[in-house]
Amino acid sequence: MDSDSLVRLVEQVQEHCLAGCVTVATAESCTGGMIAKLITDVPGSSGYFRGGVVSYSNEVKTGLLGVPDEQLQAHGAVSAQVARSMAVGVLHRTGADLAIAVTGISGPGGGSAAKPVGLTYVAVADTDGAEVRRYVWSGDRSGNREATARAALELLLERVSSGVASGRR
Amino acid sequence: MDSDSLVRLVEQVQEHCLAGCVTVATAESCTGGMIAKLITDVPGSSGYFRGGVVSYSNEVKTGLLGVPDEQLQAHGAVSAQVARSMAVGVLHRTGADLAIAVTGISGPGGGSAAKPVGLTYVAVADTDGAEVRRYVWSGDRSGNREATARAALELLLERVSSGVASGRR
Repeated sequence: MDSDSLVRLVEQVQEHCLAGCVTVATAESCTGGMIAKLITDVPGSSGYFRGGVVSYSNEVKTGLLGVPDEQLQAHGAVSAQVARSMAVGVLHRTGADLAIAVTGISGPGGGSAAKPVGLTYVAVADTDGAEVRRYVWSGDRSGNREATARAALELLLERVSSGVASGRR
Repeated sequence: MDSDSLVRLVEQVQEHCLAGCVTVATAESCTGGMIAKLITDVPGSSGYFRGGVVSYSNEVKTGLLGVPDEQLQAHGAVSAQVARSMAVGVLHRTGADLAIAVTGISGPGGGSAAKPVGLTYVAVADTDGAEVRRYVWSGDRSGNREATARAALELLLERVSSGVASGRR
Protein backbone atom coordinates (compact mmCIF):
# COMPACT_ATOMS: atom_id res chain seq x y z
CA MET A 1 0.00 0.00 0.00
CA ASP A 2 1.11 3.53 -0.68
CA SER A 3 0.21 4.67 2.82
CA ASP A 4 1.46 8.23 2.24
CA SER A 5 -1.17 8.75 -0.45
CA LEU A 6 -3.88 7.36 1.85
CA VAL A 7 -2.83 9.82 4.56
CA ARG A 8 -2.92 12.66 2.02
CA LEU A 9 -6.38 11.53 0.90
CA VAL A 10 -7.67 11.61 4.48
CA GLU A 11 -6.09 15.02 5.04
CA GLN A 12 -7.89 16.36 1.96
CA VAL A 13 -11.19 14.96 3.21
CA GLN A 14 -10.59 16.66 6.56
CA GLU A 15 -9.72 20.01 4.96
CA HIS A 16 -12.90 20.04 2.88
CA CYS A 17 -15.13 18.85 5.73
CA LEU A 18 -13.81 21.41 8.19
CA ALA A 19 -14.04 24.20 5.61
CA GLY A 20 -17.61 23.24 4.67
CA CYS A 21 -18.77 22.35 8.20
CA VAL A 22 -19.69 18.85 7.01
CA THR A 23 -19.86 16.06 9.59
CA VAL A 24 -19.14 12.46 8.62
CA ALA A 25 -19.99 8.97 9.89
CA THR A 26 -18.89 5.49 8.77
CA ALA A 27 -20.41 2.01 8.66
CA GLU A 28 -17.85 -0.69 7.97
CA SER A 29 -18.15 -4.40 7.44
CA CYS A 30 -15.19 -5.80 5.50
CA THR A 31 -12.76 -3.03 6.49
CA GLY A 32 -13.58 -3.65 10.15
CA GLY A 33 -12.77 -0.17 11.43
CA MET A 34 -9.88 0.64 9.11
CA ILE A 35 -11.60 3.67 7.53
CA ALA A 36 -12.45 5.20 10.91
CA LYS A 37 -8.91 4.46 12.10
CA LEU A 38 -7.42 6.22 9.05
CA ILE A 39 -9.71 9.23 9.55
CA THR A 40 -8.84 9.53 13.26
CA ASP A 41 -5.11 9.08 12.68
CA VAL A 42 -5.15 12.76 11.71
CA PRO A 43 -5.17 15.33 14.56
CA GLY A 44 -8.23 17.57 14.34
CA SER A 45 -10.49 14.83 12.95
CA SER A 46 -12.85 15.26 15.92
CA GLY A 47 -13.85 18.54 14.26
CA TYR A 48 -15.87 16.68 11.64
CA PHE A 49 -15.88 12.93 12.34
CA ARG A 50 -18.85 11.82 14.45
CA GLY A 51 -17.93 8.13 14.61
CA GLY A 52 -19.53 5.02 13.25
CA VAL A 53 -20.32 1.37 13.45
CA VAL A 54 -18.21 -1.67 12.68
CA SER A 55 -20.95 -4.05 11.59
CA TYR A 56 -18.97 -7.24 11.22
CA SER A 57 -21.91 -9.51 12.06
CA ASN A 58 -25.44 -9.44 10.69
CA GLU A 59 -26.75 -8.90 14.26
CA VAL A 60 -24.90 -5.58 14.38
CA LYS A 61 -26.11 -4.61 10.90
CA THR A 62 -29.72 -5.04 12.01
CA GLY A 63 -29.40 -3.96 15.65
CA LEU A 64 -27.13 -0.93 15.43
CA LEU A 65 -27.71 0.17 11.81
CA GLY A 66 -31.32 -0.83 11.21
CA VAL A 67 -30.59 -2.91 8.11
CA PRO A 68 -33.80 -4.91 7.50
CA ASP A 69 -33.36 -8.61 8.22
CA GLU A 70 -35.44 -9.39 5.10
CA GLN A 71 -32.90 -7.51 2.99
CA LEU A 72 -30.03 -9.54 4.43
CA GLN A 73 -31.94 -12.75 3.73
CA ALA A 74 -32.95 -11.74 0.19
CA HIS A 75 -29.73 -10.15 -1.07
CA GLY A 76 -26.99 -11.19 1.37
CA ALA A 77 -24.74 -9.00 3.51
CA VAL A 78 -22.54 -8.23 0.50
CA SER A 79 -25.02 -6.47 -1.77
CA ALA A 80 -25.81 -3.01 -3.08
CA GLN A 81 -29.04 -2.96 -1.06
CA VAL A 82 -27.31 -3.65 2.25
CA ALA A 83 -24.52 -1.16 1.54
CA ARG A 84 -27.16 1.50 0.95
CA SER A 85 -29.08 0.59 4.12
CA MET A 86 -25.88 0.69 6.17
CA ALA A 87 -25.02 4.17 4.92
CA VAL A 88 -28.54 5.52 5.46
CA GLY A 89 -28.71 3.82 8.87
CA VAL A 90 -25.51 5.29 10.22
CA LEU A 91 -26.40 8.71 8.75
CA HIS A 92 -29.65 8.83 10.70
CA ARG A 93 -28.34 7.27 13.88
CA THR A 94 -25.37 9.61 14.23
CA GLY A 95 -26.95 12.78 12.84
CA ALA A 96 -24.01 13.26 10.48
CA ASP A 97 -24.31 15.20 7.21
CA LEU A 98 -22.62 12.52 5.12
CA ALA A 99 -22.07 8.80 5.65
CA ILE A 100 -20.01 6.16 3.90
CA ALA A 101 -20.56 2.42 4.17
CA VAL A 102 -18.66 -0.59 2.87
CA THR A 103 -19.48 -4.28 2.65
CA GLY A 104 -17.43 -6.87 0.82
CA ILE A 105 -15.66 -10.20 0.82
CA SER A 106 -12.03 -9.56 1.74
CA GLY A 107 -11.01 -13.21 1.72
CA PRO A 108 -9.36 -15.57 1.93
CA GLY A 109 -12.63 -17.36 2.78
CA GLY A 110 -16.24 -16.44 2.11
CA GLY A 111 -16.22 -16.30 -1.68
CA SER A 112 -18.51 -18.13 -4.10
CA ALA A 113 -19.11 -18.27 -7.84
CA ALA A 114 -21.81 -15.62 -7.64
CA LYS A 115 -19.96 -13.51 -5.04
CA PRO A 116 -16.21 -13.95 -5.43
CA VAL A 117 -13.53 -12.82 -3.00
CA GLY A 118 -12.92 -9.15 -3.71
CA LEU A 119 -16.56 -8.24 -4.45
CA THR A 120 -17.23 -5.00 -2.61
CA TYR A 121 -19.94 -2.34 -2.44
CA VAL A 122 -19.24 1.21 -1.30
CA ALA A 123 -22.15 3.54 -0.52
CA VAL A 124 -22.37 7.22 0.29
CA ALA A 125 -25.50 8.82 1.74
CA ASP A 126 -26.71 12.25 2.67
CA THR A 127 -30.20 13.50 3.43
CA ASP A 128 -30.96 13.71 -0.31
CA GLY A 129 -30.29 10.03 -0.95
CA ALA A 130 -27.62 7.41 -1.47
CA GLU A 131 -25.30 6.20 -4.21
CA VAL A 132 -23.66 2.76 -4.39
CA ARG A 133 -20.59 1.66 -6.36
CA ARG A 134 -19.50 -1.92 -7.04
CA TYR A 135 -15.92 -3.18 -7.23
CA VAL A 136 -14.19 -6.53 -7.59
CA TRP A 137 -10.67 -6.36 -6.16
CA SER A 138 -8.07 -8.98 -7.01
CA GLY A 139 -5.71 -8.65 -4.06
CA ASP A 140 -5.21 -10.62 -0.87
CA ARG A 141 -7.20 -9.88 2.31
CA SER A 142 -5.00 -6.95 3.29
CA GLY A 143 -4.90 -5.52 -0.22
CA ASN A 144 -8.66 -5.84 -0.70
CA ARG A 145 -9.37 -4.09 2.61
CA GLU A 146 -7.03 -1.24 1.74
CA ALA A 147 -8.49 -0.89 -1.75
CA THR A 148 -11.96 -0.67 -0.20
CA ALA A 149 -10.86 1.95 2.31
CA ARG A 150 -9.27 3.99 -0.48
CA ALA A 151 -12.38 3.77 -2.69
CA ALA A 152 -14.60 4.88 0.18
CA LEU A 153 -12.36 7.82 1.06
CA GLU A 154 -12.14 8.85 -2.61
CA LEU A 155 -15.93 8.78 -2.90
CA LEU A 156 -16.17 10.84 0.29
CA LEU A 157 -13.66 13.37 -1.06
CA GLU A 158 -15.54 13.56 -4.37
CA ARG A 159 -18.71 14.44 -2.49
CA VAL A 160 -17.29 17.03 -0.10
CA SER A 161 -15.06 18.68 -2.71
CA SER A 162 -17.99 19.05 -5.12
CA GLY A 163 -19.90 21.00 -2.51
CA VAL A 164 -22.90 18.69 -2.83
CA ALA A 165 -22.89 18.00 0.89
CA SER A 166 -23.64 21.04 2.97
CA GLY A 167 -23.20 21.16 6.70
CA ARG A 168 -26.17 21.66 8.98
CA ARG A 169 -24.23 22.75 12.00
CA MET B 1 5.40 0.08 17.45
CA ASP B 2 6.28 -3.58 17.56
CA SER B 3 3.47 -4.51 15.20
CA ASP B 4 4.45 -8.19 15.12
CA SER B 5 3.73 -8.50 18.83
CA LEU B 6 0.36 -6.78 18.37
CA VAL B 7 -0.55 -9.24 15.62
CA ARG B 8 0.48 -12.13 17.88
CA LEU B 9 -1.62 -10.67 20.69
CA VAL B 10 -4.69 -10.50 18.45
CA GLU B 11 -4.08 -14.05 17.22
CA GLN B 12 -3.98 -15.28 20.83
CA VAL B 13 -7.25 -13.48 21.57
CA GLN B 14 -8.81 -15.14 18.53
CA GLU B 15 -7.56 -18.63 19.48
CA HIS B 16 -9.02 -18.36 22.97
CA CYS B 17 -12.32 -16.84 21.83
CA LEU B 18 -12.89 -19.46 19.13
CA ALA B 19 -11.92 -22.30 21.50
CA GLY B 20 -14.23 -20.99 24.24
CA CYS B 21 -17.06 -19.86 21.94
CA VAL B 22 -16.78 -16.30 23.32
CA THR B 23 -18.06 -13.44 21.18
CA VAL B 24 -16.53 -9.96 21.46
CA ALA B 25 -17.56 -6.37 20.75
CA THR B 26 -15.67 -3.07 20.95
CA ALA B 27 -16.48 0.55 21.77
CA GLU B 28 -13.70 2.95 20.83
CA SER B 29 -13.23 6.64 21.31
CA CYS B 30 -9.56 7.64 21.23
CA THR B 31 -8.42 4.67 19.14
CA GLY B 32 -11.08 5.49 16.55
CA GLY B 33 -11.51 1.98 15.16
CA MET B 34 -7.92 0.79 15.48
CA ILE B 35 -8.77 -2.08 17.84
CA ALA B 36 -11.53 -3.40 15.58
CA LYS B 37 -9.20 -3.01 12.60
CA LEU B 38 -6.45 -5.02 14.34
CA ILE B 39 -8.94 -7.74 15.30
CA THR B 40 -10.33 -8.00 11.78
CA ASP B 41 -6.89 -7.99 10.15
CA VAL B 42 -6.78 -11.68 11.08
CA PRO B 43 -8.67 -14.12 8.82
CA GLY B 44 -11.31 -16.04 10.78
CA SER B 45 -12.10 -13.12 13.11
CA SER B 46 -15.73 -13.20 11.97
CA GLY B 47 -15.99 -16.40 14.03
CA TYR B 48 -15.98 -14.42 17.28
CA PHE B 49 -15.98 -10.66 16.57
CA ARG B 50 -19.47 -9.17 16.42
CA GLY B 51 -18.40 -5.60 15.67
CA GLY B 52 -18.62 -2.38 17.59
CA VAL B 53 -19.01 1.34 17.74
CA VAL B 54 -16.52 4.12 17.09
CA SER B 55 -17.90 6.74 19.45
CA TYR B 56 -15.72 9.67 18.54
CA SER B 57 -18.35 12.28 19.43
CA ASN B 58 -20.51 12.54 22.53
CA GLU B 59 -23.64 12.26 20.34
CA VAL B 60 -22.55 8.77 19.30
CA LYS B 61 -21.70 7.82 22.89
CA THR B 62 -25.24 8.68 23.98
CA GLY B 63 -27.14 7.69 20.82
CA LEU B 64 -25.47 4.43 19.82
CA LEU B 65 -24.05 3.28 23.18
CA GLY B 66 -26.57 4.65 25.67
CA VAL B 67 -24.01 6.54 27.75
CA PRO B 68 -26.09 8.85 29.99
CA ASP B 69 -25.73 12.50 29.05
CA GLU B 70 -25.62 13.39 32.75
CA GLN B 71 -22.55 11.18 33.14
CA LEU B 72 -20.79 12.94 30.27
CA GLN B 73 -21.63 16.31 31.83
CA ALA B 74 -20.58 15.31 35.35
CA HIS B 75 -17.40 13.34 34.64
CA GLY B 76 -16.42 14.14 31.05
CA ALA B 77 -15.99 11.81 28.11
CA VAL B 78 -12.58 10.69 29.38
CA SER B 79 -13.55 9.15 32.71
CA ALA B 80 -13.82 5.75 34.34
CA GLN B 81 -17.61 6.13 34.50
CA VAL B 82 -17.97 6.73 30.75
CA ALA B 83 -15.53 3.93 29.87
CA ARG B 84 -17.66 1.54 31.93
CA SER B 85 -20.92 2.74 30.34
CA MET B 86 -19.44 2.39 26.85
CA ALA B 87 -18.42 -1.22 27.53
CA VAL B 88 -21.75 -2.14 29.09
CA GLY B 89 -23.62 -0.34 26.32
CA VAL B 90 -21.90 -2.11 23.43
CA LEU B 91 -22.18 -5.45 25.26
CA HIS B 92 -25.94 -5.16 25.48
CA ARG B 93 -26.49 -3.63 22.04
CA THR B 94 -24.49 -6.28 20.19
CA GLY B 95 -25.35 -9.30 22.32
CA ALA B 96 -21.66 -10.19 22.66
CA ASP B 97 -20.30 -12.18 25.61
CA LEU B 98 -17.45 -9.76 26.30
CA ALA B 99 -16.89 -6.11 25.43
CA ILE B 100 -13.94 -3.76 25.64
CA ALA B 101 -14.14 0.03 25.59
CA VAL B 102 -11.52 2.77 25.50
CA THR B 103 -11.68 6.51 26.03
CA GLY B 104 -8.69 8.80 26.32
CA ILE B 105 -6.87 11.93 25.22
CA SER B 106 -4.47 10.94 22.45
CA GLY B 107 -3.21 14.46 21.78
CA PRO B 108 -1.74 16.63 20.60
CA GLY B 109 -4.71 18.80 21.67
CA GLY B 110 -7.40 18.26 24.27
CA GLY B 111 -5.29 17.99 27.41
CA SER B 112 -5.63 20.00 30.64
CA ALA B 113 -3.99 20.07 34.07
CA ALA B 114 -6.64 17.72 35.47
CA LYS B 115 -6.78 15.51 32.38
CA PRO B 116 -3.43 15.51 30.59
CA VAL B 117 -2.72 14.18 27.11
CA GLY B 118 -2.21 10.44 27.49
CA LEU B 119 -4.89 9.91 30.15
CA THR B 120 -6.83 6.82 29.11
CA TYR B 121 -9.42 4.47 30.57
CA VAL B 122 -9.88 0.91 29.35
CA ALA B 123 -12.94 -1.06 30.40
CA VAL B 124 -13.98 -4.68 29.99
CA ALA B 125 -17.53 -5.89 30.58
CA ASP B 126 -19.43 -9.13 30.61
CA THR B 127 -22.86 -9.96 31.98
CA ASP B 128 -21.39 -10.22 35.51
CA GLY B 129 -20.10 -6.65 35.55
CA ALA B 130 -17.33 -4.37 34.37
CA GLU B 131 -13.76 -3.49 35.31
CA VAL B 132 -11.95 -0.26 34.43
CA ARG B 133 -8.20 0.45 34.32
CA ARG B 134 -6.55 3.86 34.16
CA TYR B 135 -3.37 4.72 32.28
CA VAL B 136 -1.37 7.85 31.51
CA TRP B 137 0.70 7.35 28.36
CA SER B 138 3.61 9.65 27.52
CA GLY B 139 3.87 9.15 23.78
CA ASP B 140 2.70 11.16 20.80
CA ARG B 141 -0.78 10.74 19.28
CA SER B 142 0.16 7.62 17.34
CA GLY B 143 2.06 6.07 20.26
CA ASN B 144 -0.73 6.79 22.72
CA ARG B 145 -3.36 5.23 20.43
CA GLU B 146 -1.25 2.12 19.94
CA ALA B 147 -0.54 1.81 23.66
CA THR B 148 -4.29 2.02 24.31
CA ALA B 149 -5.08 -0.63 21.71
CA ARG B 150 -2.42 -2.92 23.19
CA ALA B 151 -3.72 -2.42 26.76
CA ALA B 152 -7.28 -3.20 25.65
CA LEU B 153 -6.24 -6.34 23.77
CA GLU B 154 -4.12 -7.49 26.74
CA LEU B 155 -7.07 -7.02 29.07
CA LEU B 156 -9.26 -8.95 26.65
CA LEU B 157 -6.72 -11.78 26.44
CA GLU B 158 -6.45 -11.85 30.24
CA ARG B 159 -10.18 -12.34 30.49
CA VAL B 160 -10.63 -14.98 27.81
CA SER B 161 -7.51 -16.96 28.79
CA SER B 162 -8.59 -17.07 32.44
CA GLY B 163 -11.85 -18.71 31.44
CA VAL B 164 -13.86 -16.07 33.30
CA ALA B 165 -15.85 -15.28 30.18
CA SER B 166 -17.99 -18.14 29.00
CA GLY B 167 -19.73 -18.19 25.67
CA ARG B 168 -23.48 -18.30 25.49
CA ARG B 169 -23.72 -19.54 21.92
